[in-house]
Amino acid sequence: VTTTPRRFKLIVAYDGGPFAGWQSQVHGNTIQDHLERAIRKVSGESARVHGSGRTDTGVHALEQWAHFDLNKSRLSPSELQKALNATLPGTIRIFRCSIAPPTFHARFSVKSKAYRYRIWNAPVLPPAELGRAWHVTKPLNIMLMKSALARFVGRHDFAAFSANPGRKREETIRTITSARLTKKGACVAVEIEGDGFLYKMVRMIVGALVLHNEGKLALTEISRALDQASGNAQRLVAPASGLFLRRVRY
Amino acid sequence: VTTTPRRFKLIVAYDGGPFAGWQSQVHGNTIQDHLERAIRKVSGESARVHGSGRTDTGVHALEQWAHFDLNKSRLSPSELQKALNATLPGTIRIFRCSIAPPTFHARFSVKSKAYRYRIWNAPVLPPAELGRAWHVTKPLNIMLMKSALARFVGRHDFAAFSANPGRKREETIRTITSARLTKKGACVAVEIEGDGFLYKMVRMIVGALVLHNEGKLALTEISRALDQASGNAQRLVAPASGLFLRRVRY
Repeated sequence: VTTTPRRFKLIVAYDGGPFAGWQSQVHGNTIQDHLERAIRKVSGESARVHGSGRTDTGVHALEQWAHFDLNKSRLSPSELQKALNATLPGTIRIFRCSIAPPTFHARFSVKSKAYRYRIWNAPVLPPAELGRAWHVTKPLNIMLMKSALARFVGRHDFAAFSANPGRKREETIRTITSARLTKKGACVAVEIEGDGFLYKMVRMIVGALVLHNEGKLALTEISRALDQASGNAQRLVAPASGLFLRRVRY
Repeated sequence: VTTTPRRFKLIVAYDGGPFAGWQSQVHGNTIQDHLERAIRKVSGESARVHGSGRTDTGVHALEQWAHFDLNKSRLSPSELQKALNATLPGTIRIFRCSIAPPTFHARFSVKSKAYRYRIWNAPVLPPAELGRAWHVTKPLNIMLMKSALARFVGRHDFAAFSANPGRKREETIRTITSARLTKKGACVAVEIEGDGFLYKMVRMIVGALVLHNEGKLALTEISRALDQASGNAQRLVAPASGLFLRRVRY
């Protein structure tokens, strides 16, 4: 008798602080490594976990998606969820576990992704915000930042707002479908959604908003960098700690 | 020439997780120890720091107050604040530093204190709530908890809701001036204010609310324990991680 393998999909949340990012590494302290070890422990099977994409060291996820296949285990999705949460560190939590069709792929089936970037704009950073926001002490002008953010919406070549601009041109074209900026007390949040993001792209867009706020990057320079994909304008990568993968749509 | 010593008062916030409580200990990893070391480093003077009261290991503070005296230092309060924040770990932050009259005493001058206790009532605890809430998975009945909480308001003998009930009766009488319970999503917050709190008193009141919710402690038993200061009723100490010193009034 052969059993059909079952494909499971997961919604995973994590605090990026204690881990070396998503992608498996030799030292084993990544989200993917922790998930694969936990799956092996609770199911007895070695499965490869596929995420919707990588997140860097220090980047958080409110809703990361992943899938993996099991061949022999008889655990139900809800048993699996409970067992994984009992095994994983509290900084990685499975919020949902369900059966997916074999055609579902956590990375290739992605329609869009949404990120949140949090800035704490006040003289002192509260202990609860440590590692969960970018601490900017100089007062931010929300209107200025909003006008800069609006420039990024639409279909553009984001080579100038990516950490590896060596890629071929057609590979750096992405569409940002929505972007908004809100301020609640000291917390400035940038919400950005699109069909895909290049390496460090969200952090470089947020860096550009802050450079514009400081008078170091004009709106015309942002537009030119987007039109010509030129990397000549000032660049600033906002720290990883403020970035949250908020949602993935399929 | 002799200089008059200056008394400084501080508003301090901290994440209780990494520290062994407020009160100085030999190993030196308490909030008081960190503050005293930082003051010595930035002013060159050894000062004793007096807090509004102790907090236990794992208990957080949004607004703890403290005072200390300096004899020779010429640092202004705002210079002192900046220097202390540059020296202290990011999990301890000085939100305000000012000159206080010599009659001000952080502990003896307290008029009232307010605490917040946070319960996360959902099947899975989000990574961001780890160490910052009590994770209760069984659904809580807010109305039941509110009626139990109301019993504690007023002047009572709280010996039965304290971890050292060996004290003399008159020493365990306290007045709770206000108490309310709110629910926002999965977060149930108990806000409680009074003229003073016994050791573990807030955590035992919250424990009583949850016991009442589970049908293990009747309203009449709570009232009897308060009237007779008897320790016969079921007792439960809610974990330290959910407790926040929220405000001190002078």
